[in-house]
Amino acid sequence: MSNNSCGTSRIAGCKFTLYPMSDQFVDIILGVLEEVDTSKVWKDTDDVSTCVRGKMVHVFDVTKALFLYAAKTGEHVAMSGTFSIGCPGDTDADSYMDEADTPLNEAKSNQVSQEAGCKFSLYPMGREDYMDAIYEQIDLSKHRNVEVSASHYATRLDGDVKDIFGALHQSFDSVQEEVSHVTMSFTISANSPSNKA
Amino acid sequence: MSNNSCGTSRIAGCKFTLYPMSDQFVDIILGVLEEVDTSKVWKDTDDVSTCVRGKMVHVFDVTKALFLYAAKTGEHVAMSGTFSIGCPGDTDADSYMDEADTPLNEAKSNQVSQEAGCKFSLYPMGREDYMDAIYEQIDLSKHRNVEVSASHYATRLDGDVKDIFGALHQSFDSVQEEVSHVTMSFTISANSPSNKA
Repeated sequence: MSNNSCGTSRIAGCKFTLYPMSDQFVDIILGVLEEVDTSKVWKDTDDVSTCVRGKMVHVFDVTKALFLYAAKTGEHVAMSGTFSIGCPGDTDADSYMDEADTPLNEAKSNQVSQEAGCKFSLYPMGREDYMDAIYEQIDLSKHRNVEVSASHYATRLDGDVKDIFGALHQSFDSVQEEVSHVTMSFTISANSPSNKA
Repeated sequence: MSNNSCGTSRIAGCKFTLYPMSDQFVDIILGVLEEVDTSKVWKDTDDVSTCVRGKMVHVFDVTKALFLYAAKTGEHVAMSGTFSIGCPGDTDADSYMDEADTPLNEAKSNQVSQEAGCKFSLYPMGREDYMDAIYEQIDLSKHRNVEVSASHYATRLDGDVKDIFGALHQSFDSVQEEVSHVTMSFTISANSPSNKA
């Protein structure tokens, strides 16, 4: 579709915030940032959010690990963010695209079991037939080891954190193969004291 | 543009989560839900997020008041969410569109002064010229009593919470007059112990 999508890897990114609902939120965030290896992504944090950029595989590896390690503290932890690729206004700067594809945190993440609930919305940009891509992905999510349900403005996924991020990654990846500019917003929550609706 | 946008009011919605970074997060959320008058919107909450639906004026009035009253506790509080209007997959159900336009929480909200930082991204859907609408809104934001700056994947607004929500509301409203289906994701944060970048 776009010149960028053929052959060469494209810069993916995620702008997110990690929310530990705890007086210890600073320690939890700093501890997780210490624990997760973020050396294969460009990273910038301010008082509102963190942005990571690089190859898609590392962007998902890092965001998954950050949420997973924060959730395994047992505190009620959530993360909201938006994945993005192919924005025509994007720059080539602020990314590490020469890294090898091996995800640095996967082996350690695979040792953690953690249930969570997630709502996500896919936005394929600049295409009149965008709803088809959305419906197709909602359908595909059903085969990815997660429980899929509908909610207003989003699709809900329930299951293990690793399976949820796996479904997010596959959905995002397959849509960006068809549509040059794609964004995907998500909120994932673990250890909530609320009963599910 | 769409049949829905001419004459009759359209159903707007916001799916959001309020995040008090505090051991008292349950009390803060319940207290705020008690304090804010949500009677002019349809509302549903589960363990991941809250959804409000109705006339645009009330959707913004309620989300602004919820964040504002949570922030005035002095705790570090954030809210992430997505406003949406005109989704072709939306239903007419779950909304209160017969309410009068007077926002129920505005007078009380106007009495609270609270600084915050916000990042938002507009997604006009189904249009090949969507980037024009985005650039136009980023430009317009500069005249709305808030400090505007660029960041990856988002526009940053700094200022009083009421001015920030005012800018979000105007941006969203003016784009949805041109484009039938629009979503807008945002994260707003107050009382953060982090220094600004």
